[in-house]
Amino acid sequence: MTITDGVSAPGSGPRLHDDGLRSFASDNYAGVHPEIIASLHQANHGHQPAYGGDAYTERLQEIMASHFGAQAQAFPVFNGTGANVLALQAVLPPWGAVVCASTAHINTDENGAPERVGRMKLLPVETPDGKLTPELIDREAWGWGDEHRAQPLAVSITQTTELGTAYRVDEIKEIADYVHERGMKLHMDGARLPNAAVHLERSLRDITTNAGVDVLSLGGTKNGMIFGEAVLVLNPDAASGLTYLRKMNMQLASKMRFLSAQLVTLYEGDLWLRSAAQANAMAARLRARLESHPLLTFTQPTESNAVLAILPPAAAQRLRHNYRFYDWDPNRGEVRWMCAFDTEAPDVDAFCEAVNDALEASTSDQ
Amino acid sequence: MTITDGVSAPGSGPRLHDDGLRSFASDNYAGVHPEIIASLHQANHGHQPAYGGDAYTERLQEIMASHFGAQAQAFPVFNGTGANVLALQAVLPPWGAVVCASTAHINTDENGAPERVGRMKLLPVETPDGKLTPELIDREAWGWGDEHRAQPLAVSITQTTELGTAYRVDEIKEIADYVHERGMKLHMDGARLPNAAVHLERSLRDITTNAGVDVLSLGGTKNGMIFGEAVLVLNPDAASGLTYLRKMNMQLASKMRFLSAQLVTLYEGDLWLRSAAQANAMAARLRARLESHPLLTFTQPTESNAVLAILPPAAAQRLRHNYRFYDWDPNRGEVRWMCAFDTEAPDVDAFCEAVNDALEASTSDQ
Amino acid sequence: MTITDGVSAPGSGPRLHDDGLRSFASDNYAGVHPEIIASLHQANHGHQPAYGGDAYTERLQEIMASHFGAQAQAFPVFNGTGANVLALQAVLPPWGAVVCASTAHINTDENGAPERVGRMKLLPVETPDGKLTPELIDREAWGWGDEHRAQPLAVSITQTTELGTAYRVDEIKEIADYVHERGMKLHMDGARLPNAAVHLERSLRDITTNAGVDVLSLGGTKNGMIFGEAVLVLNPDAASGLTYLRKMNMQLASKMRFLSAQLVTLYEGDLWLRSAAQANAMAARLRARLESHPLLTFTQPTESNAVLAILPPAAAQRLRHNYRFYDWDPNRGEVRWMCAFDTEAPDVDAFCEAVNDALEASTSDQ
Amino acid sequence: MTITDGVSAPGSGPRLHDDGLRSFASDNYAGVHPEIIASLHQANHGHQPAYGGDAYTERLQEIMASHFGAQAQAFPVFNGTGANVLALQAVLPPWGAVVCASTAHINTDENGAPERVGRMKLLPVETPDGKLTPELIDREAWGWGDEHRAQPLAVSITQTTELGTAYRVDEIKEIADYVHERGMKLHMDGARLPNAAVHLERSLRDITTNAGVDVLSLGGTKNGMIFGEAVLVLNPDAASGLTYLRKMNMQLASKMRFLSAQLVTLYEGDLWLRSAAQANAMAARLRARLESHPLLTFTQPTESNAVLAILPPAAAQRLRHNYRFYDWDPNRGEVRWMCAFDTEAPDVDAFCEAVNDALEASTSDQ
Repeated sequence: MTITDGVSAPGSGPRLHDDGLRSFASDNYAGVHPEIIASLHQANHGHQPAYGGDAYTERLQEIMASHFGAQAQAFPVFNGTGANVLALQAVLPPWGAVVCASTAHINTDENGAPERVGRMKLLPVETPDGKLTPELIDREAWGWGDEHRAQPLAVSITQTTELGTAYRVDEIKEIADYVHERGMKLHMDGARLPNAAVHLERSLRDITTNAGVDVLSLGGTKNGMIFGEAVLVLNPDAASGLTYLRKMNMQLASKMRFLSAQLVTLYEGDLWLRSAAQANAMAARLRARLESHPLLTFTQPTESNAVLAILPPAAAQRLRHNYRFYDWDPNRGEVRWMCAFDTEAPDVDAFCEAVNDALEASTSDQ
Repeated sequence: MTITDGVSAPGSGPRLHDDGLRSFASDNYAGVHPEIIASLHQANHGHQPAYGGDAYTERLQEIMASHFGAQAQAFPVFNGTGANVLALQAVLPPWGAVVCASTAHINTDENGAPERVGRMKLLPVETPDGKLTPELIDREAWGWGDEHRAQPLAVSITQTTELGTAYRVDEIKEIADYVHERGMKLHMDGARLPNAAVHLERSLRDITTNAGVDVLSLGGTKNGMIFGEAVLVLNPDAASGLTYLRKMNMQLASKMRFLSAQLVTLYEGDLWLRSAAQANAMAARLRARLESHPLLTFTQPTESNAVLAILPPAAAQRLRHNYRFYDWDPNRGEVRWMCAFDTEAPDVDAFCEAVNDALEASTSDQ
Repeated sequence: MTITDGVSAPGSGPRLHDDGLRSFASDNYAGVHPEIIASLHQANHGHQPAYGGDAYTERLQEIMASHFGAQAQAFPVFNGTGANVLALQAVLPPWGAVVCASTAHINTDENGAPERVGRMKLLPVETPDGKLTPELIDREAWGWGDEHRAQPLAVSITQTTELGTAYRVDEIKEIADYVHERGMKLHMDGARLPNAAVHLERSLRDITTNAGVDVLSLGGTKNGMIFGEAVLVLNPDAASGLTYLRKMNMQLASKMRFLSAQLVTLYEGDLWLRSAAQANAMAARLRARLESHPLLTFTQPTESNAVLAILPPAAAQRLRHNYRFYDWDPNRGEVRWMCAFDTEAPDVDAFCEAVNDALEASTSDQ
Repeated sequence: MTITDGVSAPGSGPRLHDDGLRSFASDNYAGVHPEIIASLHQANHGHQPAYGGDAYTERLQEIMASHFGAQAQAFPVFNGTGANVLALQAVLPPWGAVVCASTAHINTDENGAPERVGRMKLLPVETPDGKLTPELIDREAWGWGDEHRAQPLAVSITQTTELGTAYRVDEIKEIADYVHERGMKLHMDGARLPNAAVHLERSLRDITTNAGVDVLSLGGTKNGMIFGEAVLVLNPDAASGLTYLRKMNMQLASKMRFLSAQLVTLYEGDLWLRSAAQANAMAARLRARLESHPLLTFTQPTESNAVLAILPPAAAQRLRHNYRFYDWDPNRGEVRWMCAFDTEAPDVDAFCEAVNDALEASTSDQ
């Protein structure tokens, strides 16, 4: 048979990359936790109804109810942008707008998906640390009933924030009260919610449902999954239509059992906690080892797995020869270093050594 | 530590379902091929750039070039609806419309994603067998330059069709010529393209690039992957912006290496072919064993992994006690039985026996 | 001062067209009723709040209440496409779909505005005469709760239809009952509603509110206005958000008093009725004078201001030398002749003579 | 005949409002210039092709070419939001973003139409006076090629700005150079372009085409028309698809002759100039008469028909008993007073007297 002309011989699937490499660019550069891959084996074999009619999606509802309360409804989706757009669409009418921090992922990293697909307007507010407050929200939360203004009917906060900071529970509650008093809804982008739980030493429920969050984007990928997040409706009176929104916005997985099985494995026991704790601990280690360096300025408290620092441009350039990481604010030389669930102490130590070397070399260059 | 209150003890992840069960409802009910899961192990460990900057996505480009020609560009995405909408958006201006069969997945099963997210209008045409022809396309391919009419600038065909039929290569070429003569673009929804290659005994390139297809949705999930498809630009002059469209339409996987690694494993060797061949063979076996039953009418040729049949309602109802499958046209009692890559001969034989029993019982009931 | 360089001298505004010309192409080719222009004079001078806070928009509400019931709410908009899209959006969730006749203006003449701007999916049904029936709606009104299917939650009917036919009151009621029993909403595209009222000899309320219509696009332009239509919410429980939808979809007139004043003048007295009656009468005259011609086939009953006829291609071609009109179905030589509020008997008689001449000439050519 | 039951007797159309009232709220509160109404009479009677196939739309092209250059293409539309969204859509791919001042009408007053209908993302920048500069644009004009970021491919400036200030010609040129060097397009929201021409004492072409503007929203309504603006493509290489975009976005007038005839009358001679000059002169008069009042602070130069001032809240409240005007920044007591083409010196003088009275009374209250 000649169907396979032009195709190379079926290989045994060699590893194409250096598996010893650890970057400090993003928790998305990390791999997958072995327990997660194991969950695929468990969910495999035999036929199961597609699109969520399977046993693993059913089990997921129980697990999410145990975390977020019996009223919680979970809708597994493919990625974080999908989770955010769906969650916000579900709480907004077609004329709605969302107050968010100007640094929010929905505003800066989703190529306009909230506007283009979700059709909402964002009302971004500058913040010093990625965190909104009632006073900051107040700058854009006005104009209800004025047909000319996109109606601010939701607020979105990120926990932990894009700057590595965490909202305290009382801060979330204060925002929730403000929001609900005005008839608005509160969304939390919880792509790194486990990191916040670890930092705050509070349960997932305490920092979401019990604090007044209406709808949540719950992270999976950044915490060791292959792919997958979930929209969690915490207040069923606040959201509607997620079943349809998920499908029409192209976020419905056909073989959902393999998505749900990963979420089950991550959240059934304490894998979510162990993974986030490791990432946080490594960021804390990184900061502790570099904290006192006179050429480094740390611009935010390290309350999760991200460390933001300002270093001399020459040092940054030199460091990039061996490590990938992102510029955060190029104008002032601010960079972001991130740890992941699979970052280990020797990785951090080697990186800190490289930072020290780069700083020293950049000094002696001058 | 009390963070995990309310969470059940971390289990060892028991299998929650009966792994001996085979349904004939959909190839989406199937599991994942063991070689696919193995590919995740190979791609795992260490850090790799996110969003497609990894070694597996690079390798995927080589493999796709070997199949579809050096000019081909592959964009892995999450699911088939995503692939279809992105592929069509990439070849259409904002005022475009798409001529398709009324039975096309984009028209019937995507909850309006092409219209709502892709913003295109569909111009569906009734067909006897799910296949368009120049004559059928002609019914809607007109009105260019008339601002009142959504401009028909693309045609979408499904290979194999939703009715289990396959376009012959000359049929595709004839459509491609018709389409290109009118300045339109040709999209192929190839969610089951491997099944067509098997049936036609032709290479993937012969039935796509060489036949004049401009942009292709290449299937993965239905043929044994966990999740994932790819948009293949076969004619780079015909499509633009896929990098941005993928992100803004929420189809960009962060840990893309695990999506690409699956596609590499599926298409590097002949796994795509073996899997599709098995599914096709099982459908052929199913049909052959039931072909002569006087109470069954087969409504379409079986040219892939789907069998469409009309059976008495009472028999269908009885059969459903043990097997799941879909109604295709409830008005005339037409149902669809589908085989998958993991369907085996004993599954088919047991099902045929159940069909025979149900038909007999329904007769003796009367 | 040199600001006006390159500009021709300010003219006295000569008439640039032949004001004796009457076409039979469309009621949109007609001019404006003198009483309508007079209404602008009345509404002019002095300042009035913009965007609907004026005295004329307030008066309009009273007039519309007198026609459609005290519960009716009127939202003036710019054009018919705007009225249709807004009306349907107001009764649908973001995942909604609309069953309509395949010949409906929303399906054929709005360049996908319902899909692209309104984000709804249309589910068109073939009809013999442009009129839906419960049986015809039934072909697409199914699949509620199935996330894969755009949810059919509204039905749109056109009164009078694009083929010049009119729904009887009992036919509308039967559709309304069918629609409401299934939890759907009924929209009427009433761009030519006055023509229907004239034909049926029933009040506007009888053929809309009292017949079960939930939301109405009420025509103005085709019946003698400069521009402008109105969305009429007849059942306030069925629609929401029109204030915001109108603005965000770019249908909110700033100097709304001049839009409302036209609608007031049209609907306050019997101008709407006189104008539509004239158009209908002229179509009836046209048909009566040509009815018995052996070379003409009339394809639809003439129940409004449109006459559909099949004539030999050569005759149509010859007739076009002097008159503009549209092909309706080119494949069978069907054309549409339309009369307007300003069509007069001599116009019709001259046109009929031209038709007769063209038919005779085309015969003698052979 | 009983069709008109429930309808009040046809009135002779009395004036429903006080035609002596002049507000200082908005130029949208103004009426229509008598020459504009006269243009409707001229364009009326007889039939003319709909949708722009008429003699007045043809004439409009000549007039616009005389103003903006032979390459200019004019697309009449209903309103300013429509003009802005269409103009920007025509120069952007589906993944585009627009840098604009945070005070821009597109950002603050269009209920998200650019995002919801035009599907673009806005990248607003704070400005001191409503005017962008290359340095300010630079804050958001970056990230080309990064799929995560909505691609900044257009800049929109407003002339005159929402704060009543005007860009000088050299300022526009500097922006245009900056924009074009980066492959972006320059849009100008010229809802009050005539006011800028008057202020700058330059031709319309000098401040648009010759200064590097690619696409223009040209105002009509605020300068004395009933309704209507136009999208002007000044650089045909920069824009595409306006014919289709206008229709699908519900901005295509059927009886376009009456829209074009107004624009012809406004721009054929110097009516546009006279009207804008009157509005500007009245604003200058208003400011001159109040300039030296010790309780008033003027926050922006008065370069068009708007005056922005801070006055004590008690005085503002008192003034509102007799006059309508808008709060601009309620936090600091800033209000906006606008003059229109039909504002006259006695109106201004009476208003200034009322301001003085209110200021005095508010002082004596304390």
